[in-house]
Amino acid sequence: MWLICFRELVAGVAESVRNHPDSVTNIERQEFVLSHKRNVYLQMKSLQEARSIVMEAFAGATPLAVENLAPPDAVGRILAEPVTARVSSPNFHAAAMDGIAVKAATTFGAHESRPMELRVGQDVYYVNTGHVLPPGTDAVIMIEQVQVLDDERVRIEAPAFPWQHVRKMGEDIVATEMLFARYHRITPYCVGALLAAGLFEVPVLMKPRVAIIPTGTELVDWRTTALEAVRPGQVIESNSYVLEALVAAAGGCCTRWAKLGDDPTAIGDAITAAARRDIEAVFITGGSSAGSEDFARSAIAAQGEVLVHGVTMMPGKPVIAGRVNGKPVFGIPGYPVSAIMAFEQLVAPLLAAWLGQPEPKRPGVMVKPTRKMASKLGVDEFVRVKIGRVGEGLVATALPRGAGQITSITEADGIVRIPASSEGVAAESPVAAELLRPAGAIDDTIVAVGSHDNTLDVLADELRAQSSRLSLSSSHVGSMGGLMALKRGVCHLAGSHLLDEKDGSYNISYIRRFLPDLPVRLVHLVMRDQGLMVLPGNPKGIRGIEDLEREDVRLINRQGGSGTRILLDYRLRQLGLGPDRIAGYANEEFTHMAVAAAVLSGAADVGLGIHAAARALNLEFIPVVTEQYDLVIPEAFFETRAIQSLLDVIRSAAFKQRVTALGGYHVDRTGEVLM
Amino acid sequence: MWLICFRELVAGVAESVRNHPDSVTNIERQEFVLSHKRNVYLQMKSLQEARSIVMEAFAGATPLAVENLAPPDAVGRILAEPVTARVSSPNFHAAAMDGIAVKAATTFGAHESRPMELRVGQDVYYVNTGHVLPPGTDAVIMIEQVQVLDDERVRIEAPAFPWQHVRKMGEDIVATEMLFARYHRITPYCVGALLAAGLFEVPVLMKPRVAIIPTGTELVDWRTTALEAVRPGQVIESNSYVLEALVAAAGGCCTRWAKLGDDPTAIGDAITAAARRDIEAVFITGGSSAGSEDFARSAIAAQGEVLVHGVTMMPGKPVIAGRVNGKPVFGIPGYPVSAIMAFEQLVAPLLAAWLGQPEPKRPGVMVKPTRKMASKLGVDEFVRVKIGRVGEGLVATALPRGAGQITSITEADGIVRIPASSEGVAAESPVAAELLRPAGAIDDTIVAVGSHDNTLDVLADELRAQSSRLSLSSSHVGSMGGLMALKRGVCHLAGSHLLDEKDGSYNISYIRRFLPDLPVRLVHLVMRDQGLMVLPGNPKGIRGIEDLEREDVRLINRQGGSGTRILLDYRLRQLGLGPDRIAGYANEEFTHMAVAAAVLSGAADVGLGIHAAARALNLEFIPVVTEQYDLVIPEAFFETRAIQSLLDVIRSAAFKQRVTALGGYHVDRTGEVLM
Repeated sequence: MWLICFRELVAGVAESVRNHPDSVTNIERQEFVLSHKRNVYLQMKSLQEARSIVMEAFAGATPLAVENLAPPDAVGRILAEPVTARVSSPNFHAAAMDGIAVKAATTFGAHESRPMELRVGQDVYYVNTGHVLPPGTDAVIMIEQVQVLDDERVRIEAPAFPWQHVRKMGEDIVATEMLFARYHRITPYCVGALLAAGLFEVPVLMKPRVAIIPTGTELVDWRTTALEAVRPGQVIESNSYVLEALVAAAGGCCTRWAKLGDDPTAIGDAITAAARRDIEAVFITGGSSAGSEDFARSAIAAQGEVLVHGVTMMPGKPVIAGRVNGKPVFGIPGYPVSAIMAFEQLVAPLLAAWLGQPEPKRPGVMVKPTRKMASKLGVDEFVRVKIGRVGEGLVATALPRGAGQITSITEADGIVRIPASSEGVAAESPVAAELLRPAGAIDDTIVAVGSHDNTLDVLADELRAQSSRLSLSSSHVGSMGGLMALKRGVCHLAGSHLLDEKDGSYNISYIRRFLPDLPVRLVHLVMRDQGLMVLPGNPKGIRGIEDLEREDVRLINRQGGSGTRILLDYRLRQLGLGPDRIAGYANEEFTHMAVAAAVLSGAADVGLGIHAAARALNLEFIPVVTEQYDLVIPEAFFETRAIQSLLDVIRSAAFKQRVTALGGYHVDRTGEVLM
Repeated sequence: MWLICFRELVAGVAESVRNHPDSVTNIERQEFVLSHKRNVYLQMKSLQEARSIVMEAFAGATPLAVENLAPPDAVGRILAEPVTARVSSPNFHAAAMDGIAVKAATTFGAHESRPMELRVGQDVYYVNTGHVLPPGTDAVIMIEQVQVLDDERVRIEAPAFPWQHVRKMGEDIVATEMLFARYHRITPYCVGALLAAGLFEVPVLMKPRVAIIPTGTELVDWRTTALEAVRPGQVIESNSYVLEALVAAAGGCCTRWAKLGDDPTAIGDAITAAARRDIEAVFITGGSSAGSEDFARSAIAAQGEVLVHGVTMMPGKPVIAGRVNGKPVFGIPGYPVSAIMAFEQLVAPLLAAWLGQPEPKRPGVMVKPTRKMASKLGVDEFVRVKIGRVGEGLVATALPRGAGQITSITEADGIVRIPASSEGVAAESPVAAELLRPAGAIDDTIVAVGSHDNTLDVLADELRAQSSRLSLSSSHVGSMGGLMALKRGVCHLAGSHLLDEKDGSYNISYIRRFLPDLPVRLVHLVMRDQGLMVLPGNPKGIRGIEDLEREDVRLINRQGGSGTRILLDYRLRQLGLGPDRIAGYANEEFTHMAVAAAVLSGAADVGLGIHAAARALNLEFIPVVTEQYDLVIPEAFFETRAIQSLLDVIRSAAFKQRVTALGGYHVDRTGEVLM
């Protein structure tokens, strides 16, 4: 009922917002207009149902035409028809050694004790490797086993057997025989076989062509808009480029259509125009959800029919599959990871079927989740995970689940699929993961879990610069989280800056308390400044921690347990300041950047954080304390080649210079082993 | 001593051959000239030594410059430098749902029993997904949970918690933070992250550029030579194209130079000219061995230095690595599989190092060899194998070892490396294999071992046409070999045409005798004609088997145990003809094609074989007998989906029509289950 009320009122509400634009003056181009009726999902389909619907509707017969290409141009392409050899290879009996060609029968009886003399040009002929065997000969004797007597005579001391050192006609390829069946994917190796078989052009399937129509009033085009001109509320359009690259990797090609606003008529017209062209499929990116500005469904329905709207998978739920002019039209969700999953789960299998290929399948491994991964019953969830080889097995740590976080998939080593029938995966219980990186690269990755610091990124980069094999992967769970990860045996090292409030020391007392049974080494990485972040120009005139008590100053705090929170509490106690007297003390954020963003947005006046976070958002930074950031490394890993290489990098001049250049860091004792 | 004699006499011998060209009139363009001194290999290097030499000489610092590309154009490329985000993503706090934006604190206390009214435009603002949060708000309440009272008032029954349904600024990407470390390979996913981070161009390593100089007087260019114009002794140049595709797959690019003859001066000049250009490496293809016409080594030595000549690996032994103008110059062997191995073992690791990547490594699996694979001690051998999942595990059957057989690698599913320290691998004992095809594709492959027949190729193609998942892989070891393979449990089915000479029946008595303990089914595939193959025009006027006794008729026979041999012997006995009265009866060949080639070459006048072999070489075919070709399938596999799909294909009209069109086949009972 509420929903119905809402729909009826939408137009009026929008009007009222339009008439009071002042309330949103600093947010340009944003419209609070709900000018159309809100959609509802058609009955949601399970992923399996949705796939069956798409495949049954479109996979039956390939819509792809055939083109003829020269073999070198056909690498990666798919044969449309079987190909048969036009010539044999070799197409003659060929000498396989430098030597003399003979008829084997004439050499029978030759022996060390009874050498045989043969006449050059009559019994034997000199041949080099690759030469045609002279008529009447059927064997080659290596030149090393021939004694040349003079211009006309040679001597041998052993018989030749028929066809010795001869590459016989058709040994490799036989004319008229089938070289490759249809749907064979042409590899670099195949180029050699095709040319040798006299096939100078081959029939391959045309690439499936996809028209991509980006939609969304909020989108801006990076090709024509300077970064500085992108305003809050605007989004740099990237999905069409990701999809184009995914289609290309799946063997297809794309044409990108002009971006459209949230205009159902224009979207409908574009779909129909695209579906009339020489293309095999249409993508509408964005507007596929059930929001009031989501017009993909109605536009497809108006031009043809909607087969699927909404699939019980995460990410990727708001995907649409429809048919216009007999061709598949996909509504691809706007969130980047949803877009990727919608493509990979619903579109890629169709492209593969058109190309006569089995469904694309990534290599799989068994991994142990480092923590429980809960998942909603009834939903197929694709959890992006970091995978590391720590000790004996592979461990997997879930990355953020948000469909809007493209980095959750660019950072991922693999994907764990939690089926709709499961409520999740227990920690430590083995589960299958698809690999996004080669297994070998994962084996050569040092897994860091713990407090985040930008020097870890520099370290990762310097490690790659100094070793083409090793890499460093970091997950950010705070200092205590890192120690707990070490305890559970799911990482090679943990970054930590845990202050002991009793004596002002770092990390050691925590290690003794929380890792009593795990022998570890402690390596100093950097000293880093923490400071107060304020708006440029420091409008509130804040000079130090003591100003937090001021009534006109609102703090944004870090979460309990974080090193920065402990540091703040320590300093407050030292200064005799009570948390209850600090406005905003209870407002917590989980990262340095979130604190900085809160300050920038005006939600708070000040927050404690690292220099880099302030610089990232052009905030002013008032250093108030220097803290110690170390790496905790179990002894079991300390002497491995990987960790020793990492220590070499940490101690290198290149690393220290780059860290210093970041600002806010001190490297005087970097690389020292503290315990 | 012989070698020295030989060298001194070479010029004279060559002269004498030149003066007697008549003996080779029908072999044009072939020169028996050994006009230069024969090479010897430098001291052969082990593969490991050779790789170390190459890597130490050239891998130290990347010679690759940097270019800036738009992210969509950079897919597959390697970042030359770390990249840091220029903007955060989102770059504002964004609504993650359609609904109302509120300050969470104002909603505290709302409850079903105590609903709260809020004023639109003051307490709350309508927002759609993706909108900027209005100033002063920090949470979104989904529209479904909002009761709209009128234009100005809404009611809620539950409080919002801070940041609920909000995508916070920097949630995905934080400005100034490192997005990807150097040497990161850009994937389609990365394109999304790069654009979202405001990176509209990225610095990537230039592709390593390779100059390919094909050499060899025997080579012809398929782009300019009609297939009909290729003469015996000439070879279609294909290695440069295979290498170009391999270089491209390894992230590089090639320029192909004009083909050179076996002319050391021209080759040397080309090397020097190439090494002066903007390229990173030079390939000389062909002439890298130690034969008298192999000039690559001397040409490299004359222009620079030879670091490696000859590596104890097979295939690939005659590879050269040298340095000219500070750049690596590789002499790539002429045999196609040697060329591939030389590239993959010596060049690819160098290209990877230049690109900051770990050495390319294919996925590996454990396989059981179906037979012993002997290998020479002291040589790293790369055995191409067919791999199949038969029953529980993966079984591997070696393909021909010859370096000249490109099909040994295009047919292969994997490569088993037998190290120099090993004399080979025992049958059944598990050994590691690198996969050339995806593991899933191997799992979906039906493995046929046994007698070869061209209808198996048609069957393989029809299976691909009718199922995008399944494929059929055939190894040819003769009918008895197929039964033995079934016995050893290394295949899913065996093609067989074994005649029982007692009663003229096929296969059944052999199955009872040789597979007494293996329950199998027998499916009839085709009846096929065997016949006598003779030169076009049938110059000897042969009409049937009885003519084999004629004195002027020389037979080429098949090997003992082959179905065709048994058939011939059966017919000879029926006709009362004795083998001892048949000229050439003792000369054996192992395939239909080899028999046909012997007839074509004039080595024999007649051979018994199948219609297709005769047609392949344009021989005349005189049918003399029709035989039965069946598939023997263990019951354990008979009811699997794969085999049942295969039987559906066998019984399809499409398959039967294609078989009939081949000629020489009869399909009246095709697909019948005989036992």
